[in-house]
Amino acid sequence: MDKINIREKLAMFSDHWNPRIVADLNGQHVKLAKFQGEFVWHDHAAEDELFLVLRGSFRMEFRDRSVTLNEGDMIVVPRGVEHRPVAEQEVEVMLFEPAQIRHTGDVESGLTVHEYQRI
Amino acid sequence: MDKINIREKLAMFSDHWNPRIVADLNGQHVKLAKFQGEFVWHDHAAEDELFLVLRGSFRMEFRDRSVTLNEGDMIVVPRGVEHRPVAEQEVEVMLFEPAQIRHTGDVESGLTVHEYQRI
Repeated sequence: MDKINIREKLAMFSDHWNPRIVADLNGQHVKLAKFQGEFVWHDHAAEDELFLVLRGSFRMEFRDRSVTLNEGDMIVVPRGVEHRPVAEQEVEVMLFEPAQIRHTGDVESGLTVHEYQRI
Repeated sequence: MDKINIREKLAMFSDHWNPRIVADLNGQHVKLAKFQGEFVWHDHAAEDELFLVLRGSFRMEFRDRSVTLNEGDMIVVPRGVEHRPVAEQEVEVMLFEPAQIRHTGDVESGLTVHEYQRI
């Protein structure tokens, strides 16, 4: 039950597309991540996923449209919906999603993380 | 799959201790709330609860200690742990918690909210 400071946690890593677990509750994880560049197209068959922008901005691409998210914006990507985050410049993001989620869904990519680190 | 802006949502209400649902996913709710003053002592028998400070600060009291949370700090209060948020001045907070959670646990109080509003 210690407090968790987002800025301190974000200062502990600099790599992109490698979310860190900072809290867990009710079978869900809260993660922090830095995005830069294009991720891979994927979906999560059984998990909804929340993205909250802490600093910067990025574009969430869907197959038929895209949504630009700035600081203080969040979006829920429902299970089964293909998506691809794209960040022209580095962006810091909080994720809220089930603990069992796979990073790139069923897509195996050079960006796939097989075990999330806790910080 | 529209974006949700935290500032816009917070501007839609001004009352204290009355969290609004702004997103739901995986059986969980994301809520925004404004706290000022003392809440009631309570716990949630089956739900962990996350508090993230968006603006301002407050003190989370436990029976044996308290933790002061400032902007960018979060804390997870595990199920079964008695707690009481106290805010000397108004604070804006994001909550993550299971959809079925009761506001004041099993404690019935003038502050109890029986149905959360969605905004």
